Amino acid sequence: MDDILQVVEERREVYLDWLVQLCQQPSIAAQNVGMAETAHLVERLLAGIGASARQIPTAGYPVVYGEVGGTGDKTLSFYNHYDVQPPEPLEEWHSDPFTPTVREGVFYARGVADNKGNLVARLAAVDAYLRARGSLPVNVKFIFEGEEEIGSPHLAGFAEQHQDLIRADGCIWEAGYCDVEGHREVYLGLKGILYVELTARQANVDLHSMWAAIVPSAAWHLLRALGTLKDDQDRVLIPGFYDDVLPPSAADLEALAHMPFDEDARRQQLGLRAFINGLTGPALREKYVFQPTCNICGIESGYTGEGLKTVLPHQARCKLDFRLVPNQNPHKLFEQLQTYLAEQGFADIEVRLSAALHPARTATDHPFAQLVIRGVREIYGHEPVVYPLIPGSGPMYDLCQRYGIPAVSVGVGNANSRNHAPNENIRLDDFYQGIAHLIFILEQFDTLP
Amino acid sequence: MDDILQVVEERREVYLDWLVQLCQQPSIAAQNVGMAETAHLVERLLAGIGASARQIPTAGYPVVYGEVGGTGDKTLSFYNHYDVQPPEPLEEWHSDPFTPTVREGVFYARGVADNKGNLVARLAAVDAYLRARGSLPVNVKFIFEGEEEIGSPHLAGFAEQHQDLIRADGCIWEAGYCDVEGHREVYLGLKGILYVELTARQANVDLHSMWAAIVPSAAWHLLRALGTLKDDQDRVLIPGFYDDVLPPSAADLEALAHMPFDEDARRQQLGLRAFINGLTGPALREKYVFQPTCNICGIESGYTGEGLKTVLPHQARCKLDFRLVPNQNPHKLFEQLQTYLAEQGFADIEVRLSAALHPARTATDHPFAQLVIRGVREIYGHEPVVYPLIPGSGPMYDLCQRYGIPAVSVGVGNANSRNHAPNENIRLDDFYQGIAHLIFILEQFDTLP
Repeated sequence: MDDILQVVEERREVYLDWLVQLCQQPSIAAQNVGMAETAHLVERLLAGIGASARQIPTAGYPVVYGEVGGTGDKTLSFYNHYDVQPPEPLEEWHSDPFTPTVREGVFYARGVADNKGNLVARLAAVDAYLRARGSLPVNVKFIFEGEEEIGSPHLAGFAEQHQDLIRADGCIWEAGYCDVEGHREVYLGLKGILYVELTARQANVDLHSMWAAIVPSAAWHLLRALGTLKDDQDRVLIPGFYDDVLPPSAADLEALAHMPFDEDARRQQLGLRAFINGLTGPALREKYVFQPTCNICGIESGYTGEGLKTVLPHQARCKLDFRLVPNQNPHKLFEQLQTYLAEQGFADIEVRLSAALHPARTATDHPFAQLVIRGVREIYGHEPVVYPLIPGSGPMYDLCQRYGIPAVSVGVGNANSRNHAPNENIRLDDFYQGIAHLIFILEQFDTLP
Repeated sequence: MDDILQVVEERREVYLDWLVQLCQQPSIAAQNVGMAETAHLVERLLAGIGASARQIPTAGYPVVYGEVGGTGDKTLSFYNHYDVQPPEPLEEWHSDPFTPTVREGVFYARGVADNKGNLVARLAAVDAYLRARGSLPVNVKFIFEGEEEIGSPHLAGFAEQHQDLIRADGCIWEAGYCDVEGHREVYLGLKGILYVELTARQANVDLHSMWAAIVPSAAWHLLRALGTLKDDQDRVLIPGFYDDVLPPSAADLEALAHMPFDEDARRQQLGLRAFINGLTGPALREKYVFQPTCNICGIESGYTGEGLKTVLPHQARCKLDFRLVPNQNPHKLFEQLQTYLAEQGFADIEVRLSAALHPARTATDHPFAQLVIRGVREIYGHEPVVYPLIPGSGPMYDLCQRYGIPAVSVGVGNANSRNHAPNENIRLDDFYQGIAHLIFILEQFDTLP
């Protein structure tokens, strides 16, 4: 593949220019800033590498979709997003978030790590391959959505309606980083999430607290309901909650053991006496990565301002998120939660579903995962850090696992890329090495069983 | 006492003018509006009836104190306050809150029911007595504080420093009302209160909720702590909590039975399926009046705004109030609460004392209580509604019971007096009848054993 890398070398400034073009175009989905312009620009860049490119409407911002046919039967897809987080707080940026600036080999701009640097790297890899060889050995599909930063509300529906367009034998997911020592990270899955809001109501109005002797309290009622959800060892008590949890494989545990995680440093940094249940070592890592959660994101009832107010609250609200692991199903859990609360005497508590994403993962020993890992060894010259599952969530299941498509996430970020924060950045060396890594994957993909 | 009532009749306009003067003078303690002017006016009114009058400084607003000597040995004291609640929301008043206005026999002004109408009625009763008879049969003390609406922060200290000034054989407490059918109410005590704020902390910063698998949550920690305080039958689990609770006497239960309380109407008005534990009838009344509470006034942790935020809160706060019955001690309970939480594994939760007031009461069959009740029969011509204990709280213990002084609360308000609300009012008939009732008490007081 040296011939292809030679083209990358010759076109360094071109690919950098694509990145500058894309990063100087704001595309803030949450604020509806520049979305149409950016979708158009991405479509133009796709067409520029010879892809059939088009915008596919959704109920929100369009998906920009592209295809390049290959000589083989296999299909590799790339999932990225062209929207970015809002740039605020502006005063903390050392250069304007939408005026891309390179300082000491580091490229600063809102969205460059999450996710425009990766989007351009994928265009560049295909461009260089086509210029060096005239054709790709595999079919390539580009799926660039515009709503990732607002929770991908229409991606599942898009995938369902366009199953022919998303069908692939493997998907390179949006992004990746390296650890503080420079080791490239590879992510093989994401936790799912069920986010619900519970509302308890009793009387129809807040009362003077003298009534607390005889009028039921919404706050106590909600607390009692929440008290039935977990035991004091952090174990969720909803019947069936753990039934679908897949235990980690031997390969998973091996990957966990190599995950860099300085637990003492992290504990001290957070000011904690201990982690949950006093866990340390492998048990701590396993719970972090492979166990689901039941977390209170927020709870509120009654008077919470300064000073005294003697009030009996008539309403109490709580936001809960459950992080789910394969093969838990957020919709099944939502029903189990409602049934359980009703059985425990809390049928009157309203349970509203706010968000549900399935967990998703590709086995550590899957040939596609192993190909990406081998690519890190070849291109970066070191062993990657493999995360069988990362504890965050995303729409990977809706686009990939639901249709049997293995997905692996890797990209051009670094340990200090500052996603969602001021001075977001990537290192240019990582950008070009990432392109080379993608070229390796393109070249080897049709050798997979 | 017809000769004295004759004087009241002759001086109706004078007493009404005193009320107008006092009500047109704003005295909003919470906003430091007109406090010095009002203290001076009250001192002048006291001097005007021949009392030795002076202002006694406290760390806050002064106590206006007055004495009128009597021919007998006994001493009767009057506790009132010259401060009022803020008048807001102004747009809901039908006439200016500090421009006293009489419409159809009802006097409207901020503070007229709570507590200026009662303060003036007590001045008027003594004035009429002195004018008719030349002297009082008992010594009278007036204790008019200026901080009741902000929680009487300096009254306990004032009483402790001036025990000679507050010493009395009985105290007529600040206020009273009638029920919707016009029956005068007599209150023989108040619940105490312990108000605390609990704060649980875990990590030193809020975290992404993916950390919930291994990082302890302040919200769950606080909820578990609160879960140890009460069982699901509303019984407080702090050891010793009920040890000092006095069971109601036969006279108390008799008074309870006559307390007008339409439980079905009240339940429906509040939109409740049932009261706590499904209680009805005498058991419901007894719990309302004679049982202590443990109430969540407010609880807050994490993200409580609209929409989704996936956060693991590092801090959780809760405001609790315990309403206490005789002879529970709020300071003792504060220590019991801290000890209990520590024993249950929550020593790290901060427990801050916000307010503590002892419960206070005078026995239903106490001669002083019976005198006030007899006065209602004589003056109003009907049986009063006697509350052995009202479920609210106030500084009665600090001024009276602590020094062995029986206290009874009665006054000139009505069932729709709108304390603390727009269009606060008293009926003028109640004002003059209240004066007559006080004259009856003055005349009979030295007949007590």
